[in-house]
Amino acid sequence: MKIGIDMMGGDFAPLEAVRGIRQYLQDGQAHLLLLGDEAQVAPLLEQEGIPAGKYTLVHAPQVIDMHEHPTRALKEKQQSSIAIGFHLLASGKMDAFISAGNTGAMLVGSLYALKPLEGVLRPTISTIIPKENGKTGLLLDVGLNSDCKPEHLNQFARMGSIYARHILGIDNPRVALLNIGEEEGKGNLLAQATYPLLKANTELNFVGNVEGRDILLDKADVMVCDGFTGNIILKLAESLFEIAKQKQIDHEYFNRFNFENYGGTPVLGISKPVIIGHGISKSMAFHNMITLAQKMIYTGVMQQMSI
Amino acid sequence: MKIGIDMMGGDFAPLEAVRGIRQYLQDGQAHLLLLGDEAQVAPLLEQEGIPAGKYTLVHAPQVIDMHEHPTRALKEKQQSSIAIGFHLLASGKMDAFISAGNTGAMLVGSLYALKPLEGVLRPTISTIIPKENGKTGLLLDVGLNSDCKPEHLNQFARMGSIYARHILGIDNPRVALLNIGEEEGKGNLLAQATYPLLKANTELNFVGNVEGRDILLDKADVMVCDGFTGNIILKLAESLFEIAKQKQIDHEYFNRFNFENYGGTPVLGISKPVIIGHGISKSMAFHNMITLAQKMIYTGVMQQMSI
Repeated sequence: MKIGIDMMGGDFAPLEAVRGIRQYLQDGQAHLLLLGDEAQVAPLLEQEGIPAGKYTLVHAPQVIDMHEHPTRALKEKQQSSIAIGFHLLASGKMDAFISAGNTGAMLVGSLYALKPLEGVLRPTISTIIPKENGKTGLLLDVGLNSDCKPEHLNQFARMGSIYARHILGIDNPRVALLNIGEEEGKGNLLAQATYPLLKANTELNFVGNVEGRDILLDKADVMVCDGFTGNIILKLAESLFEIAKQKQIDHEYFNRFNFENYGGTPVLGISKPVIIGHGISKSMAFHNMITLAQKMIYTGVMQQMSI
Repeated sequence: MKIGIDMMGGDFAPLEAVRGIRQYLQDGQAHLLLLGDEAQVAPLLEQEGIPAGKYTLVHAPQVIDMHEHPTRALKEKQQSSIAIGFHLLASGKMDAFISAGNTGAMLVGSLYALKPLEGVLRPTISTIIPKENGKTGLLLDVGLNSDCKPEHLNQFARMGSIYARHILGIDNPRVALLNIGEEEGKGNLLAQATYPLLKANTELNFVGNVEGRDILLDKADVMVCDGFTGNIILKLAESLFEIAKQKQIDHEYFNRFNFENYGGTPVLGISKPVIIGHGISKSMAFHNMITLAQKMIYTGVMQQMSI
């Protein structure tokens, strides 16, 4: 099992990536391919005492910056850590790829360097939702697909359900449509047309609509919406942690909105695991992303999403 | 100035409505038309010591329940407090109408019993957003228009801006488009098409896009979105207060998510002020709604929204 890590991505690269790797290697089993500038990364690996047999350092002299245009940067910077990462992933030389770098470039790479899974109309990204009773839910799409059709939401529901089962460990996950009313027939045109598809989908444990007030309650395990709505909810939720911290509201529940806890966002519906971290990822986030990649490879969750 | 109040609407009617009226009358100037079942309301008015000269009790023997079908109920229950309220409002016998009753019936009444203002394509409803720095923003639409066109959002921006100026007392309010990216050109098809309209609208102080993470920050005074997205944000925000209360997180900021503080939601873009309260409204909410109605009449804010 080989997991590739972009050592140059994120505000605190490469040092925090190296520290996350050290934490992971305390009990992680995968061999790590570290993609980055040798001159910067190698001394840090030594400094942090990373055992030589556990990784292969792959020299990538270029870096795609956070604000570069994704498609153009990927095309022009073939020797960047992200471009090399997708090349190695697509050619079968590694089994998963992690980066806290340019999100757009990671998405473009996921969609175009890799194949979508058989039958998947649109790959998607999700976020963990901390439920107020301590449980964990999944919300998707959170920004990859800002305009959606009902059949897309139906597939997101299925992929989210498979992910919740295999990765979050939720048996028979309850799937709900995020909507602005409880009854069937409520909502905008998209929600109205999506409801009957979800209801008829025998692969889902569909429990109906949930509203904005239910997002943080334990009404459903998987909540489906278009990527515009989902992205706004995700970023609002992230801001809650920041605001609570800034106001010194130190409560366990709001601490769970620290998305660093969850590592990163996997792209669902593509042939291999790709995990996109926050730009502000620190060692814990890198550690968690590598662990998540290992679990995704081990469970074969992605392959189960093909139709 | 005559303000009509539905005495039968809401979970705690009519007692909490009466108590709100008593609070209002400590310095409020409007004459109040109280619509409700005389046998239930009159003894409470006496019990709570409401001065007789300050109100007119209008007997309304029927009640539209919270879960009745709005259009059907309004049609069949002509003697209900809500139906009589809209009749008095439309015929000029009162200047504003307040109810914490069936929201759907209040919206149907607002749209069909009253005229929309000249040039207004779609009336809208908004919510107050407590900013983390203590200021107050406005978000609209929050559920009246679940599918929108760019020209609708452009009008919501204008109406929200007028409301923010006259009612919230914000000079030259900063108007933003709620979106999933900072730059022009980002977002779903609706947001992409709305941005240039807002940018070209010389009546607005347009400051560009804001994202989900900015909703609670002081980036803009008026934030515009479709009613599907807005309703989900509103209900998520309401749930924050409930969750904080339940977890005994007693912090001033989360207390500001107690929407009872703000009274109710005015319907914007119709000929006269209609204010819709929560079903759980208590005396403070009624008091605040009457005060808001008085301010809306006094400033003539609604008329300024005609085009």
